[in-house]
Amino acid sequence: MAADTISFARGAPSLDIVDVEGLKAAAKRAFENDPAGLTGYGTAIGYPPLRQWIADQHQVEPQNVIVTNGSMQADAFLFDQLVAPGDPVVVERPTYDRTLLGLRQRGADIRPIELEPDGIDVEGVGRLISDGIRPKLAHVIPNFQNPAGYTLSRDKRDGLLALAREHGMTIFEDDPYVAIRFSGDPLPTMLSLDSDDTVVYASSFSKTVCPGIRVGYLVGPADVIAGVQKRATNTYISPNMVAQGIVYEFASSGGMPTAIETVRNALRDRVAALTAALERDLPDAHFVAPEGGYFMWVELPEGVDVDALLAAAGERGVTFVKGTDFLLDGGRNTLRLAYSGVTPKQIDEGISRLAEAYNSLSGTPAAA
Amino acid sequence: MAADTISFARGAPSLDIVDVEGLKAAAKRAFENDPAGLTGYGTAIGYPPLRQWIADQHQVEPQNVIVTNGSMQADAFLFDQLVAPGDPVVVERPTYDRTLLGLRQRGADIRPIELEPDGIDVEGVGRLISDGIRPKLAHVIPNFQNPAGYTLSRDKRDGLLALAREHGMTIFEDDPYVAIRFSGDPLPTMLSLDSDDTVVYASSFSKTVCPGIRVGYLVGPADVIAGVQKRATNTYISPNMVAQGIVYEFASSGGMPTAIETVRNALRDRVAALTAALERDLPDAHFVAPEGGYFMWVELPEGVDVDALLAAAGERGVTFVKGTDFLLDGGRNTLRLAYSGVTPKQIDEGISRLAEAYNSLSGTPAAA
Repeated sequence: MAADTISFARGAPSLDIVDVEGLKAAAKRAFENDPAGLTGYGTAIGYPPLRQWIADQHQVEPQNVIVTNGSMQADAFLFDQLVAPGDPVVVERPTYDRTLLGLRQRGADIRPIELEPDGIDVEGVGRLISDGIRPKLAHVIPNFQNPAGYTLSRDKRDGLLALAREHGMTIFEDDPYVAIRFSGDPLPTMLSLDSDDTVVYASSFSKTVCPGIRVGYLVGPADVIAGVQKRATNTYISPNMVAQGIVYEFASSGGMPTAIETVRNALRDRVAALTAALERDLPDAHFVAPEGGYFMWVELPEGVDVDALLAAAGERGVTFVKGTDFLLDGGRNTLRLAYSGVTPKQIDEGISRLAEAYNSLSGTPAAA
Repeated sequence: MAADTISFARGAPSLDIVDVEGLKAAAKRAFENDPAGLTGYGTAIGYPPLRQWIADQHQVEPQNVIVTNGSMQADAFLFDQLVAPGDPVVVERPTYDRTLLGLRQRGADIRPIELEPDGIDVEGVGRLISDGIRPKLAHVIPNFQNPAGYTLSRDKRDGLLALAREHGMTIFEDDPYVAIRFSGDPLPTMLSLDSDDTVVYASSFSKTVCPGIRVGYLVGPADVIAGVQKRATNTYISPNMVAQGIVYEFASSGGMPTAIETVRNALRDRVAALTAALERDLPDAHFVAPEGGYFMWVELPEGVDVDALLAAAGERGVTFVKGTDFLLDGGRNTLRLAYSGVTPKQIDEGISRLAEAYNSLSGTPAAA
């Protein structure tokens, strides 16, 4: 990769939208206010004041919350707890590549259901169940999905919950992007709509504080949380108390709204730049502009080969992730553009390079 | 447990021997010196400057090092990598209870070999091999062993290495206490004596910086480290960059020697107090005073029931961990005393209470 390559590949924030000064100040206060809590082992459940803060945010009790070393670690514990080899598990099609990997490693019977611009095809989940499949779990990223950027509508949230209740399916509501909505109205979490212990909810501070702090969490039924706690104890005794103490100080001091506003404003500008650049330079691209999050899903005309596009793009100093990475099959004409780590100026130049790469392909519909 | 219970149970430092001011200053510098490195995802290999620092300490290359969220997490990855169900694994008898649990969970064929005051019975390992067992791994805590406080002699280090080389056995040198020797002369690590990729070494900053920072590491053959890195990526993307950045600043600024000296001095005083109190109040106790670390192993006369002792101790406001927790069988007359979290004054009072509990037991040899 050339030094000046513009990367639409990685779902991570650029440094300019991380509140480093706020973090530094939070670290100072954390060591001053609770030296014993930060420096001691603590327990696998997480740093108690942060656990309480999260419980308050979700209007649940602390026994419904465990704070982990990033939410992917939480996913891993939850899969170990709930998914046995051969268990049917519903995922969105496309979905986060590491989720697919984690489920594959555990021998799950992965059942991808089409993701539509208003979220997973709930009727499709219903048909699967009618066909006699009994999914143990349905993994759903409801807001600004990774990789598609799509959001699950309110009606579909209700519909999925009804299916889950009726058929004893757990919904794994994987919601790291919820706080970084930059347009449209927020929707209630399925966790908040659930009254039957049907939902296990995961989120993280990677998108609101920063990824390097590695603090994520699960909210769910007390028995599930207790099971995850046991696994966490046996794996690492306790998660990072220093990091969780810093997040707690950052959050409880009121720094969060300002930090989130900075992120939202930047992402809104970046999506605007991305949309404008695609419309200008790559009119063959089909996409739905996301209302939040880091990602935009782009479909190119049938017959475009994303492998060839990625190679041609690399030669021109721009990169992205192929849609096929997020699918068990198909999607050879799709790609994911992450706009979280690039400025509007870089986006403008990057899409211009991408269009050049696209137009260079022999066999593109335009050339055909 | 009563509010004023004196606990010899947990292997953790008391707050007075943690350099909280040093940590606070290191956190400030870390955010100032490398905001991008601390706040970004990084990779599963760990924070690169800390990885380099550790490599320098052990005179190896960075590709031989991975930095993890505490060393227990490193153990878990390593067991997943090297131990298949049914594989014979040598452990010390007694050994760390979480090591036994981790190996049991993976279906290892656990082969406990007697731990002597100068370390594991290497001839016993040899006999096991002569009997046709081919251990995949030998887990050894060479310095100030948990729970026994014993240290592996130089001769036995050489002997174990020779066996490992000859029979293709990996030595897992689990060495979290090495830096906190407070008497006697340091011995070379088996890692440093090894020239055949026979040793995987683990250590941690829990005992030199603080446990809540949750930073541990592995040193070993590059292929083993690469395999562990892959597992780490799939489990949590990357470990805690903020915490590792703080440890790096703490270590590289020269704060470590002073911090360690504080810990060593305190532990030396605590062992002296413990030894004196046991000799005074509990002359039936047999023990070897450790030269470092957190733990002392105590043997009481045959026939003493440590379950009854623990109950009687609890009633008198003192607690400890039963020796049976560290063994697959036997050891009903043994216990582990952790002196890392108690002051000399508490030790004095705690052993006086323990002796009272001991003397209260019907069926103690004295009463029989």
